[in-house]
Amino acid sequence: MNTFVPTTRTRVKRLHKRGHYDEATVHAILDAGFICHVGYTIEGLPYVTPTSYWREGSRVYWHGSSASRMLRTIEAGVDCCVTVTHLDALVLARSGFHHSLNYRAVMMFGRAHKVEDPVEKLAALEAFVERMFPGRWNALRPVNCKELKATTVLWMEMKEVSAKVRTGPPVDDDEDYALPIWAGVIPVRQVAGAPEDDGRLVAGTKRSAKLTKLEHIGLRRR
Amino acid sequence: MNTFVPTTRTRVKRLHKRGHYDEATVHAILDAGFICHVGYTIEGLPYVTPTSYWREGSRVYWHGSSASRMLRTIEAGVDCCVTVTHLDALVLARSGFHHSLNYRAVMMFGRAHKVEDPVEKLAALEAFVERMFPGRWNALRPVNCKELKATTVLWMEMKEVSAKVRTGPPVDDDEDYALPIWAGVIPVRQVAGAPEDDGRLVAGTKRSAKLTKLEHIGLRRR
Repeated sequence: MNTFVPTTRTRVKRLHKRGHYDEATVHAILDAGFICHVGYTIEGLPYVTPTSYWREGSRVYWHGSSASRMLRTIEAGVDCCVTVTHLDALVLARSGFHHSLNYRAVMMFGRAHKVEDPVEKLAALEAFVERMFPGRWNALRPVNCKELKATTVLWMEMKEVSAKVRTGPPVDDDEDYALPIWAGVIPVRQVAGAPEDDGRLVAGTKRSAKLTKLEHIGLRRR
Repeated sequence: MNTFVPTTRTRVKRLHKRGHYDEATVHAILDAGFICHVGYTIEGLPYVTPTSYWREGSRVYWHGSSASRMLRTIEAGVDCCVTVTHLDALVLARSGFHHSLNYRAVMMFGRAHKVEDPVEKLAALEAFVERMFPGRWNALRPVNCKELKATTVLWMEMKEVSAKVRTGPPVDDDEDYALPIWAGVIPVRQVAGAPEDDGRLVAGTKRSAKLTKLEHIGLRRR
């Protein structure tokens, strides 16, 4: 099993049993989502920007407008922290203190690189669309040069990375288990609702059934 | 209508129509969630930590173990950025370029303060539990001094803050509307499943129906 070496930044110190450093756990968490929060600094001050991402092998990618302040800052080679969080349950204990959340999170640190080669950039964007919606790329109007130029794609090598996971029921103080207080978990998940057609569809245009198979990005059907 | 004054950090420059600076929009987004991502720096390097939060008036609070690196760093008075993001839909356009997400996000900047007074701290924790689960605080085993000491509560005044919101259908290039490509939105929401009793409940312990009314924190029942 491949594992990441914990560093002072990635080692989970408190509640260290929640820390995971194996590639399989990290990849599974990343592959079950598509929104990350990217942290970076401008003139020493921290910013946290939500954006979509995708993973290929040992790299995490994200993208956006070439005019984006976040992307222009990060492509210049500043340190950043990318965090992905999935909430799995509310955990209700018998005391306020032991209330908690079940979650899966990944934090990774490093510097990102810009995909400069247009062919490579196009391939990365194809991978992104195909990851979200398998089969869609070839059904779309092709990307043109202007759009490709207006898009920045960044990637970060996963090196300094860890996962933190809480699962299971509340953990109460021994003596509190004798109290007649309801305790348990309320599961939480992100779901996709029924697709809504755009108002300007060409008559007769059908939606591919594949478009609503979203479990691989953490979305079940409602 | 109260509004926040945009600064160089909070003014939404690209897609500026998505920027909102009125208190009502900011408060509504904050009040529809309970997980934020807190950005801060340690020795100049950025960190992004997910944690729960709550709002009272013009303050946003978060909390955790007094031993938490994130809380110890921030209580020392460093600049931070708190971001709250709700995903509302996947937006599928006729070109890859115009694919998007519908979302509501708030970013706020500033320094946080620690609640030092124990009475005030207890009141803040009560407000947190009551915001999540109205009526629960008084049903719980009371907080003790050790627990109160082991908990740090921070708050930040909302001053430098903005919201960014995308809603509605895809916006395609004029000529692309003639293409027979399916386009539209797939709504996304976070839902709560059926509560699961803790395995060690005292026989006969009932769950209050109120505990599953979670719409106010952005969770519908599945």
